[in-house]
Amino acid sequence: MDFKVNSKEFEKLLSKIYPAIPTKTPMPLLEYFYFELSEGKLTVYGTDLEISLKASISVPSEGNFKGLIQAKRLYELVRSFKDTTIYFQIEYDHTLYLSTDKGKYKLVYLDTDDYPEIPSFPNVNTEEEINEVIINGEELKYSFDKALFAISKEDIRPAMMGMLFEFVPEGLRFVTTDGHRLVNILNKNVNHNIEEKYVVPERAISVLSKLLDEKDVKIYFDKNHVSFKLSDIELISRLIGYKYPDYENVIPLENEYYLKVNREELTDAIKRMLLFSVTGTRKIKFSLMKESFEISAEDVDTGATANETLPCEFNGEPMDIGLNAAFLLEVLTHLSPEEEVMFKINSPTKAIIIVPVKGKENYDLLMLVMPVRLNT
Amino acid sequence: MDFKVNSKEFEKLLSKIYPAIPTKTPMPLLEYFYFELSEGKLTVYGTDLEISLKASISVPSEGNFKGLIQAKRLYELVRSFKDTTIYFQIEYDHTLYLSTDKGKYKLVYLDTDDYPEIPSFPNVNTEEEINEVIINGEELKYSFDKALFAISKEDIRPAMMGMLFEFVPEGLRFVTTDGHRLVNILNKNVNHNIEEKYVVPERAISVLSKLLDEKDVKIYFDKNHVSFKLSDIELISRLIGYKYPDYENVIPLENEYYLKVNREELTDAIKRMLLFSVTGTRKIKFSLMKESFEISAEDVDTGATANETLPCEFNGEPMDIGLNAAFLLEVLTHLSPEEEVMFKINSPTKAIIIVPVKGKENYDLLMLVMPVRLNT
Repeated sequence: MDFKVNSKEFEKLLSKIYPAIPTKTPMPLLEYFYFELSEGKLTVYGTDLEISLKASISVPSEGNFKGLIQAKRLYELVRSFKDTTIYFQIEYDHTLYLSTDKGKYKLVYLDTDDYPEIPSFPNVNTEEEINEVIINGEELKYSFDKALFAISKEDIRPAMMGMLFEFVPEGLRFVTTDGHRLVNILNKNVNHNIEEKYVVPERAISVLSKLLDEKDVKIYFDKNHVSFKLSDIELISRLIGYKYPDYENVIPLENEYYLKVNREELTDAIKRMLLFSVTGTRKIKFSLMKESFEISAEDVDTGATANETLPCEFNGEPMDIGLNAAFLLEVLTHLSPEEEVMFKINSPTKAIIIVPVKGKENYDLLMLVMPVRLNT
Repeated sequence: MDFKVNSKEFEKLLSKIYPAIPTKTPMPLLEYFYFELSEGKLTVYGTDLEISLKASISVPSEGNFKGLIQAKRLYELVRSFKDTTIYFQIEYDHTLYLSTDKGKYKLVYLDTDDYPEIPSFPNVNTEEEINEVIINGEELKYSFDKALFAISKEDIRPAMMGMLFEFVPEGLRFVTTDGHRLVNILNKNVNHNIEEKYVVPERAISVLSKLLDEKDVKIYFDKNHVSFKLSDIELISRLIGYKYPDYENVIPLENEYYLKVNREELTDAIKRMLLFSVTGTRKIKFSLMKESFEISAEDVDTGATANETLPCEFNGEPMDIGLNAAFLLEVLTHLSPEEEVMFKINSPTKAIIIVPVKGKENYDLLMLVMPVRLNT
C-alpha cells in the first residue's frame, strides 16, 4: 500500500507529536509513533501514558494502515530532508519503505495490539458528564506563562504537581504552588457554566504552552481526563486525582501595608544579593522605611556582605523582613513586563503578596512568597 | 588604599582571565583571582596549574596591593552592573569594599603567599634557550579551528592530548590525532628559524582560540612552557613533555585513487546514514563506481536500512569501503566552507586521506580517517 507526503508538511506533523514521546521509558513501545491511515487521512499519535498528542493530515490514498514506527529515527530522518516528496510503500511483512530524490530507507513497523489505549473526546459511548469550555489560545498561554514555574517538583504532595483549574462565577482561576510561593491568576474573559475544580499535570501544561497560538482552544473535562483541542492538534492528559490544597487559607486578607517599587531595579538588586546570600537558605533582608528601603545579604561563611538602597513608597512603620532571594527573583521575573509591583505586607512572619500595580485588563494576578526567619 | 575603575572596562578584564579559573578543583585557592596593583597598573591572574592567564589595565592610584579575591562572586557582581564607576577601598584587615551608585559590597581578600608561582616570559634570569615566533591571530585561529576537534580525550597516550607545533623549513605545521582520525595543517606564512617540536595541551588551544583576533601574537617557547602574548592578554601553558607519535608513518604516500565529491551533499547524506548505523560502530559503507557512489547503512538490531546514491568523480576500480559515520561527519564539518573535497584512497584497509579540492592559499590541509572492516 502506497501514499506520498510533502516532507515539510510531514515534518510539521511529526514535530507536534514528538514532545509526547518519552526519552527514557521502561515501556519501549512508547518510543514509537502510532500511525493510522484511513479514508485519506493520516493520523499520528504519541503518548507517555500521562499525556497523549494526536494530529492528522490528508494524504491521497485509498488504503488503510495501522502500525508503530520508531519515533526518533523517523523524525530525525524526515527533518533532514529539504522540501521534497516522500513516497511511502508499506509491505505486509512489517517493512516500510520511504523513498525520496535522495535515497531509499527501510524501516520496520510493529503491530498496534500492545499499544496503550488512547482516550477520545467527546466520547459518545460514555454516560459520564463532560464539561466543555472555549478559551482563546493566547489567553491560555498568558496564564500558563505566569503560573507554570510555581508548580511543585516534589511528589510528596501529588496535587501540587499540577495546575489547579478552578471554575468560579467570575471566570476561570489558575493556581500553582510549591509551598514556598504561590501564583493565583483569574481570567475573567472565560464564559462557562461549570462548577468544578480540576488539577492538570505539569507536563500537560508545559507541552501545551509551546503549541498554543492565537486561535481558540476547546477544552473538555471528564472525571479523569482533560482534552485540549487546538485547530491542528489534540492533547489529552490524565487529571491528577488528589484534592488540591486549600490555597485560600494561605492568602492573607488583612495585609494592610504596601510597598511600591520598580520591578526591574529590584530584580537587578536581588540578582546581586543572591551572590552574597548563603547557598542553602538564599536569605536576604528587606529593611523598610517610608521612602526608601535597604536590601542586604551576608555570606556568613566568608564574611562577604552586600547592601543596596532603593526608592519606594511604603505606608507602614519601619520593619525588617527576611526573604528567599531565589524564590523572589523567580516571582519578579514572571511579573515581567510590569513596570511597578506592589508588595502587600502584614508583618515579618506572614505571607507576602506581590501584585502588578497596573496589571492586564480582565485578569486578577497575585503572587505570594513566604518570608524566612531573620536571626535577629 | 583606594582606586576606581569603570565597571565595563573592569568586566572586560575579568572576563579574559575567568576562563583560566577551574570550576572544580581540590585546591580552593585556584578559585580566586590574583590581583596586583603597582605603579598605576592593575594586573589580574588566574590559573588552573595547566594554563594561566594574565591581563592589566591602568588605574589612577599610587598604592600597592597584592591579594586573592573570590573569582566567581567578583566576576558575577561586576557583570551585573551597568556602565558605572566602581570605587575600591582596601583595608589592612583583609576586607575590601566595592561601592557603586547601586550599593556597597564587602569582600574578603586572602594573602598571595600560598598561590602557585606564575611563570613569566621572556625570563631574563634563566640560561634556558627561548624560541620566539610571531603569527597573525586570525591565521592561528584558522589552524586551531581546523585541528582542535581531533585531539584525543583519552589519557592513555598523553602526547595525543595536545596539538603538535612542528617547526619545519616550509613554515609551521600543526598536527592532532586520536588514533581514529588525524589533522595535519601546514601554515607556510610563518617565518622562523626554529628547529623544534612542541606539544601544547588541548585546554590552552581551546581557551586561546576564543581570545584570538586579527592582531599578531608573539609566541615564546622554553623547555617546559609556551607563552602566547596577545595585544591585551598573555596565556602561559605547560608543554606536554611526552614525545608526539610519529604521525608521518600513518599518512600513506601511495594513495593513487581519488574520489571527488560535493562536501555539503555528502555531509547531509552521512547525517541520515548515522540514523541507521549501529550505535557502537557507526559503520557505513561506500560502494564506489566511476561516476556515482552509493552510501549505505544497516541497523542489524532492527533491520532498518538506508541507501543513497551521490554523483562523484572516481578514477579507480569499483570497491567497497567501511567507514565510521560519526568520525567522517566531524572531518567533513571541519572542512567547511570548502565546496568540494577529495578522498585519496589506496584500498579498503588503508588510511583514507581527505583534502579540500581548492583549499586556502599558503596552507596545506590534510585530514585522515581509518577505514573499518566490512563484514562481507
